Amino acid sequence: MNYEKVILTDVTGRDGFQMEKEWINTTDKINILNGIIASGVKRIEATSFVSPKAIPQLSDAKEVIKGLNRALVDVIALIPNKKGAERAIEAGVDEVNVVVSVSETHNKKNINKTVAESIEVIGEIFELMEAHGKQVNVGLATTFGCPFEGLYAVDRVKAVINQIASRGVTRFMLADTTGMANPMQVSDFVKQLQADFPVLDFSLHLHNTRGMGLANIVAGYEAGIRKFDGALGGIGGCPFAPGATGNVSLEDVVHMFKMMQIPVDPEVDRLIGTARSLEKLLGYKLPGQVMNAGLATNTIKS
Amino acid sequence: MNYEKVILTDVTGRDGFQMEKEWINTTDKINILNGIIASGVKRIEATSFVSPKAIPQLSDAKEVIKGLNRALVDVIALIPNKKGAERAIEAGVDEVNVVVSVSETHNKKNINKTVAESIEVIGEIFELMEAHGKQVNVGLATTFGCPFEGLYAVDRVKAVINQIASRGVTRFMLADTTGMANPMQVSDFVKQLQADFPVLDFSLHLHNTRGMGLANIVAGYEAGIRKFDGALGGIGGCPFAPGATGNVSLEDVVHMFKMMQIPVDPEVDRLIGTARSLEKLLGYKLPGQVMNAGLATNTIKS
Repeated sequence: MNYEKVILTDVTGRDGFQMEKEWINTTDKINILNGIIASGVKRIEATSFVSPKAIPQLSDAKEVIKGLNRALVDVIALIPNKKGAERAIEAGVDEVNVVVSVSETHNKKNINKTVAESIEVIGEIFELMEAHGKQVNVGLATTFGCPFEGLYAVDRVKAVINQIASRGVTRFMLADTTGMANPMQVSDFVKQLQADFPVLDFSLHLHNTRGMGLANIVAGYEAGIRKFDGALGGIGGCPFAPGATGNVSLEDVVHMFKMMQIPVDPEVDRLIGTARSLEKLLGYKLPGQVMNAGLATNTIKS
Repeated sequence: MNYEKVILTDVTGRDGFQMEKEWINTTDKINILNGIIASGVKRIEATSFVSPKAIPQLSDAKEVIKGLNRALVDVIALIPNKKGAERAIEAGVDEVNVVVSVSETHNKKNINKTVAESIEVIGEIFELMEAHGKQVNVGLATTFGCPFEGLYAVDRVKAVINQIASRGVTRFMLADTTGMANPMQVSDFVKQLQADFPVLDFSLHLHNTRGMGLANIVAGYEAGIRKFDGALGGIGGCPFAPGATGNVSLEDVVHMFKMMQIPVDPEVDRLIGTARSLEKLLGYKLPGQVMNAGLATNTIKS
């Protein structure tokens, strides 16, 4: 059987590094990200142009982007506002990600705005980026539930998408910010959103907080999603959400897709090598599992 | 929608405890297992009647079984041979599990027999247990691949099942002993085995070695499996297989099924409480994720 190819976006540099309290040298960041790029990853969310006061760890955003081997990769930066967008353009990113939560409470805690206010900002950013011929991807945080507001119906997600899509945005990342999603819900939400918004482009950003990360990816793939995020070694989380732990591990995701004979670019072996360097750099045991257990078999092509 | 109920078998007392090098007091074992029973688990593989020299940790098998609150639970013991079967009968178990590997190499390393020799033993045990009116479940280790022999086609699994079924055995546990299975393979194997052996009863025993444990459970459920094993906190592994780590975490499995609205007996909250006691008892951080992150939402019924 021929399966459709999967496109992965590595978010180690942003969703991963932003959670690290101890300063990581810019050169070390660049080496890790270039290691990931060398493994064959085609899209990388490398950093964020947030206020250096808000997240000092990412204050070297411009230098990090300058250091990347960009020949084969689309470089993406997260931006919180128009000022961040201008800095990102100046730094020469290919695309920007901007985030709004489906949950009012989470949005307020995360970026101190109402959802309506965030959507205004997204509209402005979209205009600016369009004028520069650059893509905008909107991350919908807490798509599958919020630690403060619980679970909600997909209608609430649809309403937020509707408002943002009316500004011209077409690319949405459905984010399970605190790992609350389950496979049946992912399948249900994705199918409904694709049916209601056939022209929009959806990707999945999943966390493995409660062990369901890979199960949710399979559910998403079966429902038609072909784009997923992951972070090397499963690092990262969300600083404003209690109980939130790591992104799905990039190399575990790649390993699973290769085991299932589903085409995906990065080479597992090289990702594992870089994940081990990252573990050494950060100085604690990373949650990634294939980096510890090894490949399920040497017979799979990495 | 109404989903069919899932039956879970807890294997903490056998597949979990057998990996612990430091002696666990019999009373502590009993308290943990009774905690699991109190949460609503209906089947428990509590121990093994192996040689105390082979696995000293399980030398108190008879005492452990004596200490269990048995009113609402089927008590199962693993047995390696006819002598173990006799001890298990004497101890008053409800059922026995006996294991053979699909892989010759793994079977040799695990129980120092050829697969054919093991099948002979299984035939003898089956006769003995049938004479006592007790169920025999055959665990097929390395069903989804072997760390020594790699992956193989489902035909090899079918051949082993055929030989064992010809002795009268009807209940088979498909075991992913070292966490090599992927969701597509689980789905494929299960569908083929159910089609070829419609009268046999299959369950899944999965490990989370490479992060695919819950994804494989969903794949198994969707393919028609309703019986799964799990160990509290995700403890356990296989002493004779390199890189093998924990069983799927019982409480993570229960949590996922409840989130998906699929009926399952145990109460998550009570399992988490017992998992925390187990963590204290063993003195190291357990891999279970819901016990650390908490329920995905308080709105789910535990």
